Amino acid sequence: MDRNELAALLEDVARGKLSVDAAELRLRQQPVRELGFANIDTHRAVRTGAGEVVFGAPKTAGQIEAIVRAMHEDGQERVLITRLSPEKAEALDIAGLEYYETAQLGITGGMKQPDGHGRIVVATGGTGDIPVAEEAALTAEFFGSEVQRIYDVGVAGIHRLLAHMDEIMQAEVVIAAAGMEGALASVIAGLADCPVIALPTSVGYGASFGGVSALLSMLNSCASGVSVVNIDNGFGAGYQASMINHIRIGGKE
Amino acid sequence: MDRNELAALLEDVARGKLSVDAAELRLRQQPVRELGFANIDTHRAVRTGAGEVVFGAPKTAGQIEAIVRAMHEDGQERVLITRLSPEKAEALDIAGLEYYETAQLGITGGMKQPDGHGRIVVATGGTGDIPVAEEAALTAEFFGSEVQRIYDVGVAGIHRLLAHMDEIMQAEVVIAAAGMEGALASVIAGLADCPVIALPTSVGYGASFGGVSALLSMLNSCASGVSVVNIDNGFGAGYQASMINHIRIGGKE
Amino acid sequence: MDRNELAALLEDVARGKLSVDAAELRLRQQPVRELGFANIDTHRAVRTGAGEVVFGAPKTAGQIEAIVRAMHEDGQERVLITRLSPEKAEALDIAGLEYYETAQLGITGGMKQPDGHGRIVVATGGTGDIPVAEEAALTAEFFGSEVQRIYDVGVAGIHRLLAHMDEIMQAEVVIAAAGMEGALASVIAGLADCPVIALPTSVGYGASFGGVSALLSMLNSCASGVSVVNIDNGFGAGYQASMINHIRIGGKE
Amino acid sequence: MDRNELAALLEDVARGKLSVDAAELRLRQQPVRELGFANIDTHRAVRTGAGEVVFGAPKTAGQIEAIVRAMHEDGQERVLITRLSPEKAEALDIAGLEYYETAQLGITGGMKQPDGHGRIVVATGGTGDIPVAEEAALTAEFFGSEVQRIYDVGVAGIHRLLAHMDEIMQAEVVIAAAGMEGALASVIAGLADCPVIALPTSVGYGASFGGVSALLSMLNSCASGVSVVNIDNGFGAGYQASMINHIRIGGKE
Amino acid sequence: MDRNELAALLEDVARGKLSVDAAELRLRQQPVRELGFANIDTHRAVRTGAGEVVFGAPKTAGQIEAIVRAMHEDGQERVLITRLSPEKAEALDIAGLEYYETAQLGITGGMKQPDGHGRIVVATGGTGDIPVAEEAALTAEFFGSEVQRIYDVGVAGIHRLLAHMDEIMQAEVVIAAAGMEGALASVIAGLADCPVIALPTSVGYGASFGGVSALLSMLNSCASGVSVVNIDNGFGAGYQASMINHIRIGGKE
Amino acid sequence: MDRNELAALLEDVARGKLSVDAAELRLRQQPVRELGFANIDTHRAVRTGAGEVVFGAPKTAGQIEAIVRAMHEDGQERVLITRLSPEKAEALDIAGLEYYETAQLGITGGMKQPDGHGRIVVATGGTGDIPVAEEAALTAEFFGSEVQRIYDVGVAGIHRLLAHMDEIMQAEVVIAAAGMEGALASVIAGLADCPVIALPTSVGYGASFGGVSALLSMLNSCASGVSVVNIDNGFGAGYQASMINHIRIGGKE
Amino acid sequence: MDRNELAALLEDVARGKLSVDAAELRLRQQPVRELGFANIDTHRAVRTGAGEVVFGAPKTAGQIEAIVRAMHEDGQERVLITRLSPEKAEALDIAGLEYYETAQLGITGGMKQPDGHGRIVVATGGTGDIPVAEEAALTAEFFGSEVQRIYDVGVAGIHRLLAHMDEIMQAEVVIAAAGMEGALASVIAGLADCPVIALPTSVGYGASFGGVSALLSMLNSCASGVSVVNIDNGFGAGYQASMINHIRIGGKE
Amino acid sequence: MDRNELAALLEDVARGKLSVDAAELRLRQQPVRELGFANIDTHRAVRTGAGEVVFGAPKTAGQIEAIVRAMHEDGQERVLITRLSPEKAEALDIAGLEYYETAQLGITGGMKQPDGHGRIVVATGGTGDIPVAEEAALTAEFFGSEVQRIYDVGVAGIHRLLAHMDEIMQAEVVIAAAGMEGALASVIAGLADCPVIALPTSVGYGASFGGVSALLSMLNSCASGVSVVNIDNGFGAGYQASMINHIRIGGKE
Repeated sequence: MDRNELAALLEDVARGKLSVDAAELRLRQQPVRELGFANIDTHRAVRTGAGEVVFGAPKTAGQIEAIVRAMHEDGQERVLITRLSPEKAEALDIAGLEYYETAQLGITGGMKQPDGHGRIVVATGGTGDIPVAEEAALTAEFFGSEVQRIYDVGVAGIHRLLAHMDEIMQAEVVIAAAGMEGALASVIAGLADCPVIALPTSVGYGASFGGVSALLSMLNSCASGVSVVNIDNGFGAGYQASMINHIRIGGKE
Repeated sequence: MDRNELAALLEDVARGKLSVDAAELRLRQQPVRELGFANIDTHRAVRTGAGEVVFGAPKTAGQIEAIVRAMHEDGQERVLITRLSPEKAEALDIAGLEYYETAQLGITGGMKQPDGHGRIVVATGGTGDIPVAEEAALTAEFFGSEVQRIYDVGVAGIHRLLAHMDEIMQAEVVIAAAGMEGALASVIAGLADCPVIALPTSVGYGASFGGVSALLSMLNSCASGVSVVNIDNGFGAGYQASMINHIRIGGKE
Repeated sequence: MDRNELAALLEDVARGKLSVDAAELRLRQQPVRELGFANIDTHRAVRTGAGEVVFGAPKTAGQIEAIVRAMHEDGQERVLITRLSPEKAEALDIAGLEYYETAQLGITGGMKQPDGHGRIVVATGGTGDIPVAEEAALTAEFFGSEVQRIYDVGVAGIHRLLAHMDEIMQAEVVIAAAGMEGALASVIAGLADCPVIALPTSVGYGASFGGVSALLSMLNSCASGVSVVNIDNGFGAGYQASMINHIRIGGKE
Repeated sequence: MDRNELAALLEDVARGKLSVDAAELRLRQQPVRELGFANIDTHRAVRTGAGEVVFGAPKTAGQIEAIVRAMHEDGQERVLITRLSPEKAEALDIAGLEYYETAQLGITGGMKQPDGHGRIVVATGGTGDIPVAEEAALTAEFFGSEVQRIYDVGVAGIHRLLAHMDEIMQAEVVIAAAGMEGALASVIAGLADCPVIALPTSVGYGASFGGVSALLSMLNSCASGVSVVNIDNGFGAGYQASMINHIRIGGKE
Repeated sequence: MDRNELAALLEDVARGKLSVDAAELRLRQQPVRELGFANIDTHRAVRTGAGEVVFGAPKTAGQIEAIVRAMHEDGQERVLITRLSPEKAEALDIAGLEYYETAQLGITGGMKQPDGHGRIVVATGGTGDIPVAEEAALTAEFFGSEVQRIYDVGVAGIHRLLAHMDEIMQAEVVIAAAGMEGALASVIAGLADCPVIALPTSVGYGASFGGVSALLSMLNSCASGVSVVNIDNGFGAGYQASMINHIRIGGKE
Repeated sequence: MDRNELAALLEDVARGKLSVDAAELRLRQQPVRELGFANIDTHRAVRTGAGEVVFGAPKTAGQIEAIVRAMHEDGQERVLITRLSPEKAEALDIAGLEYYETAQLGITGGMKQPDGHGRIVVATGGTGDIPVAEEAALTAEFFGSEVQRIYDVGVAGIHRLLAHMDEIMQAEVVIAAAGMEGALASVIAGLADCPVIALPTSVGYGASFGGVSALLSMLNSCASGVSVVNIDNGFGAGYQASMINHIRIGGKE
Repeated sequence: MDRNELAALLEDVARGKLSVDAAELRLRQQPVRELGFANIDTHRAVRTGAGEVVFGAPKTAGQIEAIVRAMHEDGQERVLITRLSPEKAEALDIAGLEYYETAQLGITGGMKQPDGHGRIVVATGGTGDIPVAEEAALTAEFFGSEVQRIYDVGVAGIHRLLAHMDEIMQAEVVIAAAGMEGALASVIAGLADCPVIALPTSVGYGASFGGVSALLSMLNSCASGVSVVNIDNGFGAGYQASMINHIRIGGKE
Repeated sequence: MDRNELAALLEDVARGKLSVDAAELRLRQQPVRELGFANIDTHRAVRTGAGEVVFGAPKTAGQIEAIVRAMHEDGQERVLITRLSPEKAEALDIAGLEYYETAQLGITGGMKQPDGHGRIVVATGGTGDIPVAEEAALTAEFFGSEVQRIYDVGVAGIHRLLAHMDEIMQAEVVIAAAGMEGALASVIAGLADCPVIALPTSVGYGASFGGVSALLSMLNSCASGVSVVNIDNGFGAGYQASMINHIRIGGKE
């Protein structure tokens, strides 16, 4: 329910067209559909102009199925399911579900036509970072951004990265995914003149501590213009990058 | 030296107008001015259309003064000095330096006229977060963004925050600065439909561990569209927010 | 053995009705029944007016069975077994055992009739927190409290929580279970005027560090009236909430 | 503004006695008084029946003075200022301010007459824990609870604690303040049959890590009925203890 | 080779009975028998009057078998194999091997007759600590100490522990094994007047961090006379306790 | 009150010579003397045959003075005050107080004549570890042990340590104090055949983390017979070493 | 492409023999061969005179196979595949692949003839450190160094290490691999007069924290001349040791 | 005493020229000079061909003075004192002491003539890293290495570093000193073909955790040929770099 609808409703109360109790009921029940175990925010799409997301990891296949169906019934065709294991994907009975195994994402309703201000670059330090990078790239595409992938350009061979200077210089936003020492984000931010979202991955061993080394490295970047998301949070990086790629101009979207 | 200048220079080499050695010399020496203890990147402003920044904390007043003067001599009028203690600010002999004590910032050349796409909101959870928030707000203003401050609206009294829903809904970017449990970023990201930059502060005691609690809270935000900068890194938050506020439209700035 | 019985016994000693040795023997052997691998405190129920609890995780099915049987023989009908895996529950041969798989709890002797001062609200941030929340809710019910569940009301969509303001305002105690950034506890404590027990869960990934992020967030809550239990310690939260719900009035229970 | 007032206001809107705009204005402005740097929640006292609290640590003496005066002007006589250093206390010009140096608390409007259900026991492991314990005890007294102090009864000499069994058995709530290994909370919780709030202190050295050792010990207590507050958070422990001591009976306060 | 043998050998060199090269060879090769992958110190028994120990965890069954056989050939009948999994124990073909599954220990050559100064008490907080406690108890028995086990006497029910005051008061050394909050060591050290070796176990969950909570608690014990071994290091506790139980009197063993 | 006195008292109760109330009173009041801020255990000396210890760090000079005087009045002449800063020592008005500045110890009543079974060796890795080592050595001397100091024999020059093999081989107990990597304890435990108490110190910088590196190193010692005390806990090491040096023989002290 | 080739190419551009575009194309495409998921740096061998390395852990067998084949096609015969599990090794269809199971290494093109300045010693503290040590030793051999293995010479029996003083004194570089307390590196560095590379391993349990204890111990070594690599990073230690063993003399290789 | 001297001494014993006791005495006393608080290894210079080092931080000026004098008396003219504060340097009365304030080093006997195989490059990420870098550079010079300093070439402006490619390509060893995210080491190691010693500094704030972020980043470097020293351990980096620069060729120094 947007602010105009709210204003209308309140006007009705003031004019006696609507009882206080009835209005209260509508206000309370409307934006959330209760399934017992989950409250779906079916109005988020209206508010944000984008699809809804289901965080699949802690949910059973049955719970995911019920949630997606309820969304479909409420007219929300486009749904993104993150951290969806192959086993759960196999068990789901949802028409039109596409499954991206590398990224562990499920999508219904297809990708959105790109309608952002420019292009998002998703770069990785190594081959092992690709699954997380794909989660970011596909998420950004789901929300209507064009994405260019530049993989395996870690700083140990800086010329591999420099060979892609043009693409990086023309990007709207860059997502820099790297594990181990996570230096990629700093080097790219030193080269680019657009926002860089650093995406630490859990690739590494020993003192990488499951991604903590990369995370700390990125938080302490000596380059300006870097912000960071959680370890392996490809969704978060892709979502925010697409949000930046769609920011309203002139105070209006 | 921007890409057009570079192309011109290379053309000259190809045409024999310029020797390889001479070109190499120009390329090497130009963008960096060496002071012995510091290499100043005097071309960053050209590349990024913005002023240069000096990280004041680990430098002596003498070093800062020498760096700023070299910049001024190279035609870089607008300089931002971060983490500048009152003692060092006092010791500096730089014409036209304005000092902002709360934010520990020094600025030469004045603020830039706002020329971004919209307005940046800087919100804080408490009164103690204001110094870091001011560092963010003034940085964003230095780089040409209009800023609205909404301070002391922590989640312990959620109605204080809800009273500012309008400003938050109209922001281009929100910077959410909070210490202690850092929940402000999640709550704002759940309300807003623009990118949120979470800025953890070191306000707190005991198990806040100097801002680590807020940092972790923000990295693990259950709300989409949040990215995080280092603890107390007001500059980083303000810089990236302003960068987002100025992103090029249609692949061109 | 309660304090009245103890007083009587000591009187008997003073009056010569009972030898020191005999009294010592009774005192020593009575309250604890030794099984070789476990000392069961069969008088705790008398002391605290509640059932006995068996922490199932580190015990074999055989050990659990022997302990519960010894309790039953000593007249302790109502027993709560926590952290009981489905495999162990399957292996147990205990008459009248009810098993709650989501919460991994086993109960003999049934739930107690609610006899507390009011109602306990158990709220969760997401669907993934439900198993821990159920451990809390069922524990509170086992100890005689009425419980209302409000699940999946995380702060990323604050209106979902605000829709339940009435229930929260009328609660005697609120248990706020959340993983990831754990902000739910602070927001609820800012809204409610009763004690809030924060229950961090291990839901999350990356820098959630198995619940540490939520734990720290809750310990640093900027809202007053919050205390915290161990990560995933649903039992502890439910037990203390029920204890608060039954505190004696006027210095007497 | 409590729920009755809100209901009345909404009735007025429905009856046309109040315009929507006027009502909205009152709703928005009323509960919060803006000082520029702080939003004071002047209605919390109405909601919770208690005085307001100012967290003094990150505020200047000037800010504290302005906040307390605004409260006094709004009719909030009783104010508790926590973490108030002797230097700031000295600098404050507030009529009727009492300063408790050991606990670093300032109080205006005096203590409240005890009106709780029973008595709160505040126990410490050692002499070094007394400042934090006093913060807890005075906070509880400020909010209307009778408090009994039992200091220096650490578990290294368990007979010192056992000598106070009667007081502990008759308490409504016990606050167990301890640093170092923090075992006091577990031992008391094993003895008492009321809620125990564990209050870790930063007393210790080496691997006590500023109170982390005590904090972890208390979170992992093998005794039931223990919850924990932040390290050195005497205010939080005292506030929640008093809240428990005043919980409404029969669903109504 | 003890000091007398060394003196004799050196005398022989001085007297020309032995060439320097030959002596050097004997000195180098003697005390260590090289198997390629392991250097067995077959003289440790001579030096310390006790059996040899094989740390089984990182070795294959084949490696363990070869090491034990080499010891047997060198006349070392009594061998203790620690951290020996049931699978490896099953795979070993060593005559006279006794396997203790709870403690995951293998022993050849049988237990030694108790010949220490007194009795060692091994106490545990709970049932889950028994495997580690048994590793300690059996190790102490292997090295010739009489051991008394007092299990499941955690501080949550302090009377269970107090019922065993006599045994504790008469012990030569007490090993206090506990997980979770590890308070047992402090309470026992406050009661006993002999050295207490604190043995943290990894029993617990959440913020017990695999035994770190108990470890820190024990290191910070407010009771005097406590020292600590590594988490789950039953062998180390039992070995040192037995060493204390056998210390030489009057400067001579 | 030792066990014989207790037995006598209880006999009197059984025979009617003493009322229950009177006995209870004596039992309760006797062993503890309450000063308001501290409960002194004046009977510990009787129980353990040793002097009493005051942990000076968190106490004011006034508190220390009051405690020591109360002890003196109760006939406890020999008192050890630990972590006593020069400033507090200066401020104390206690007759016969000797102050050891390096070790930050104060002692009244003088050292005890050595009456242990043998000699304690206190070794340090470097010069910086000496203050903590002195705290250990003087504590052991206070409790009646002969101590031999072997300082600055760190493993970086192993021949410095090997030059002292004789003293180490003849020790009853060795205390190995070291900061940085803390390897001294392992090397000594590999050489000695007596218990080794590892005493980590906070000497070091960077990743020594205030002694954590040495602490972990010592807890993970690959040598048998090592136990560990808290970082910089010279008192604890000296106390336990002296306790081992005085253990009763034949089950009787 | 080495610097001479680059100079030649640039000369051609200057002389008009080569167009800017063509040169750019060659420069860009040559040194890196793109496989879509990996950018192979086929010129590293030319630059560094050594074989190429594939980090096998995060790659599928298919990816590894494709990368190695591309290298072979580009004339890179000698390839080292690290962290190659037996399962992946089994699945690889690569002619001439030798697999070293203990070290989890695969090698094509055989070992290089030793051509370093001297010999590298690889020492381990225990048997459990051998897999990591073998990774280091085989890596050094792959890059042309002679290696001497000295295994199971931990500091708990220092004479085992001293028996190998000659080899250690004659080494060019020593790699000291150890888990648990990691003291081996310090002791060897105190004995040797060559660089020591400390290689912490994850052998241990409890407070060894997967190798962190050894890592910290080695970083804080009190001996000079020690540097450290990541936990279990046998490759890194072997690679750098071989690099040191091959450093150019007189400023030229 | 080197191995030749030892051989001669042993020959004398075998030939009866020297008694066993006399030889033993010489062996024991010679290499170490005892000052009571410090054992000086006056033969290290003989063994390693270099000066002796005094770690100044934990020592008093008096202790340092006594140690240096003893060295001078034993003919050790060249002494390096590390971590020497200006205050202590001022207090020292040592003839010929040169003090380097930035690096906090004191040197007697002057720098050694460069006699290494090549040149060491010391690079820093920023101006703040210079003190630690100077400690490394001066240490390397003290031990006879030529050093080239390249300061303030952090990865945020990669062209500043690339401008120095020639010096880096010609170095024998590179020391890369950086704080914050520490990416400099990885980038240099990717460019250079010589050993890189990574030197993390404590420059930074917030989540740099006093240099831990840089340390972890360097340990996890994705580039081969990097090893790491302790945070701010400029001495260690310079010492090992110089050691590498002087390694013996052909198995002989």
